[in-house]
Amino acid sequence: MKIYFATGNPGKLKEVSEKFAGIGIEVMQLEDEYPEIQTSQLEEVVRWGLDWLWERHKVPLMIDDSGLFIKVFDAFPGVYSAYVFKALGCEGVLKLMEGVDPRQAEFRCCAGYIDGNGQVVVTGTVKGRIIHEMQGTGGFGYDPIFVPQDQKKTFAQMTVEEKNSMSHRGRAFGLLADKLRE
Amino acid sequence: MKIYFATGNPGKLKEVSEKFAGIGIEVMQLEDEYPEIQTSQLEEVVRWGLDWLWERHKVPLMIDDSGLFIKVFDAFPGVYSAYVFKALGCEGVLKLMEGVDPRQAEFRCCAGYIDGNGQVVVTGTVKGRIIHEMQGTGGFGYDPIFVPQDQKKTFAQMTVEEKNSMSHRGRAFGLLADKLRE
Repeated sequence: MKIYFATGNPGKLKEVSEKFAGIGIEVMQLEDEYPEIQTSQLEEVVRWGLDWLWERHKVPLMIDDSGLFIKVFDAFPGVYSAYVFKALGCEGVLKLMEGVDPRQAEFRCCAGYIDGNGQVVVTGTVKGRIIHEMQGTGGFGYDPIFVPQDQKKTFAQMTVEEKNSMSHRGRAFGLLADKLRE
Repeated sequence: MKIYFATGNPGKLKEVSEKFAGIGIEVMQLEDEYPEIQTSQLEEVVRWGLDWLWERHKVPLMIDDSGLFIKVFDAFPGVYSAYVFKALGCEGVLKLMEGVDPRQAEFRCCAGYIDGNGQVVVTGTVKGRIIHEMQGTGGFGYDPIFVPQDQKKTFAQMTVEEKNSMSHRGRAFGLLADKLRE
């Protein structure tokens, strides 16, 4: 079986390809972009994007979308994490969090698949907390200020393998692989 | 001539209807919503929304989208102003602006029209600054922290008539009316 994955990120393509190779699914890159709609829910972005790409390509395909959800702000920066990161950076989020307690947050990744039978959409989550200053230089985005539950290091202090083993994206595509194997 | 206006806001419908009545155009409410795409540009949201609604209705129609663009953050909260307001409020923006100078910002409204001949898209802007504490109880959103250039009061301290006379939306629909009259 062959599934197209609409992503422009080679690291992501590699990570997902390796995961799906284990269940006998070949992952090919789909070189197309889809409009991401404005909503507070990752799942709505993904469901809408799947339908949009399906209309155009009519091949089995996958997409995903991720975000950091800070509990006290009720889903900020959430679906707009990339945009907010570009505008404010980790520094801006730390400034907003000055004096704020509790500091719970979670990274979520919503992964979706579509074919002629409809959609399969799942969400992988990593709970954790926003620390008080940036730590680590690995990863990207908010990784330097996020420490997963029961961990002592930020995502930015982990190796790629460590992070992938517990990341929201790893979990989402693991769940998706389980569903597709069923 | 009759133009449909896709908005769920009765105050906005009334304001725009009155403006367009002056040039002999009747404005009717279009009761449909369109997906707003994620982008940093209001104009892209509006152009995409116009095409989407045109495909479905094929009648002359208008939409608009507004945002607050804070210079030092390079367009934040911008297109996502409503979402950021819900998450952080004026308080959050003031916190981000603590110790920040300069404090220039502008409200922008992008208004667009479409018919069988294509699109007309214009942008109205009000330059001003973010003050250091909330003032006034009128208006909505970021009005209590925004003082237009050459003014002493925030939008939230003005009457509806005062604000409309200088607002980004007033200007955008004024420009659009001029273009449609041509």
